[in-house]
Amino acid sequence: MRIVVLAGGIGGARFLRGLQQAAPEADVTVIGNTGDDIHLFGLKVCPDLDTVMYTLGGGINEEQGWGRQDETFQVKSELAAYGVGPDWFGLGDRDFATHIVRTQMLSAGYPLSAVTEALCDRWQPGVRLLPMSDDRVETHVAVTIDGERKVIHFQEYWVRLRASVAAEAVVPVGAEQAKPAPGVLEAVASADVILFPPSNPVVSVGTILAVPGIREAIAEAGVPVVGLSPIVGDAPVRGMADKVLAAVGVEATAAAVARHYGSGLLDGWLVDTVDEAAVPAVEEAGIVCRAVPLMMTDVAAAAEMARAALALAEEVRA
Amino acid sequence: MRIVVLAGGIGGARFLRGLQQAAPEADVTVIGNTGDDIHLFGLKVCPDLDTVMYTLGGGINEEQGWGRQDETFQVKSELAAYGVGPDWFGLGDRDFATHIVRTQMLSAGYPLSAVTEALCDRWQPGVRLLPMSDDRVETHVAVTIDGERKVIHFQEYWVRLRASVAAEAVVPVGAEQAKPAPGVLEAVASADVILFPPSNPVVSVGTILAVPGIREAIAEAGVPVVGLSPIVGDAPVRGMADKVLAAVGVEATAAAVARHYGSGLLDGWLVDTVDEAAVPAVEEAGIVCRAVPLMMTDVAAAAEMARAALALAEEVRA
Repeated sequence: MRIVVLAGGIGGARFLRGLQQAAPEADVTVIGNTGDDIHLFGLKVCPDLDTVMYTLGGGINEEQGWGRQDETFQVKSELAAYGVGPDWFGLGDRDFATHIVRTQMLSAGYPLSAVTEALCDRWQPGVRLLPMSDDRVETHVAVTIDGERKVIHFQEYWVRLRASVAAEAVVPVGAEQAKPAPGVLEAVASADVILFPPSNPVVSVGTILAVPGIREAIAEAGVPVVGLSPIVGDAPVRGMADKVLAAVGVEATAAAVARHYGSGLLDGWLVDTVDEAAVPAVEEAGIVCRAVPLMMTDVAAAAEMARAALALAEEVRA
Repeated sequence: MRIVVLAGGIGGARFLRGLQQAAPEADVTVIGNTGDDIHLFGLKVCPDLDTVMYTLGGGINEEQGWGRQDETFQVKSELAAYGVGPDWFGLGDRDFATHIVRTQMLSAGYPLSAVTEALCDRWQPGVRLLPMSDDRVETHVAVTIDGERKVIHFQEYWVRLRASVAAEAVVPVGAEQAKPAPGVLEAVASADVILFPPSNPVVSVGTILAVPGIREAIAEAGVPVVGLSPIVGDAPVRGMADKVLAAVGVEATAAAVARHYGSGLLDGWLVDTVDEAAVPAVEEAGIVCRAVPLMMTDVAAAAEMARAALALAEEVRA
């Protein structure tokens, strides 16, 4: 079975680990969000791709869900001693090596997809990890701080400000001109199932769908497309998805997110058992909906969610 | 008193620390060798400038004479895990930060002299540290390995091969087109004394002198130029200067190095007391020569050498 998964960072990565346990024989292609990529200290950092790679490759810091285990911070403290910032983005020494290798390969002319493949040679994530695009896309967020309207990089909004102010608009800058990375459309076209993990519907899955051609390819693939709600009991499972949902005029509820994707894209939707009452509203929108536990407390729980998603896919296929 | 010092790495840096103790009120400008600069992992590494900066700024690894104290090697071990080399150049995590800042500033368009000044803002070395040139100069070495003639980067010869094969030629590639960095010629023209520390006469001081204009400015400065022999008892005090001296047809003796610089450049030369017999040969070449202890066993010994050099400068001035 060929499965395509559109993934952001932590939620996507943890779901993928469950999927690998649930369907060990499946051929999984991950289309990773690169809208939260950022240049720091002259280095190209791809937080979502790395979170997927480290999580599936056994190098992730399990507690925080991003960055490397057994990490140290000598480089960061030295950069601070030089007065070189930003200091709010926590790059560790092990992580720096990834960004150094990536930047060196990009400077040598390799596209991000080739670089990602080379990095994965080491990590052996057990999936084919593709960036959504080799072109630069950068999610920016419009905010008002002290009465002044500003447009800032998504990471500045998310990590520095911790989404403490309202996101007035979320714009994936460059997305309109971006092309899907080599292999992306082919993977979608030959997929048996397409899954949206409980990743952020605006700044993760939404950014991937903003690359022209990807949304259309998914809609026209003619195979079950099943998503899992990142909202449980009217709040994000983790992260601050509610803040960016507001920017696109979507309520932070499991049903509203499903309707935001729409029946033109989604065939099936899983909500948490606490949101069972939302099932009729989703099904009214033409999307088959089931309520199952959606808290990824461990790999077994994530695997159970993946099994439920695959079962729903077979149900809508039939 | 304005003193200009042409410095390579370890020997130059340790001599400078002695000079600072010997002449605490002096205004010291260091013209640093950049011929051993190398791009590693996409980063610009300036080993000699950094050795001077770390040594005078209190950050040097005292035992090895280069690199940072309390160093760790996480980045390097991760790069090796990615299969990305070279693995023979020992960049530590703290040191990486310096190269990251430097590379970022160079990419932003700052010349190396401005970058060096910015890095020195942190280290406060107590001297004005100027690269010999803002232009790229890279010392290459011609060698024959397994019957095949190759031209390799100086660092590959020095660090990877540890000068284990004969250097057939030493070429400072780019030197002919290089211009002295801003401030270099001005510092030489306004110096009261010019010193050549016991740095490598071929790949350190020789490379600086290969930048058009610098040798001429020193020769025409009209002030005492005094050098200290890096060869003691027919062997280099440290490093492998004998290997590269052979490439330029110069014997590895204190007298031969003085004659290699020549009386057109040098007014005074210090040899070690074990080489006292070499004094007449140096003086025959028109260079005033004295024998004093030249082993920099500690800062006090280096200060004593600096005092002897300054005394010899006053002697030749008179």
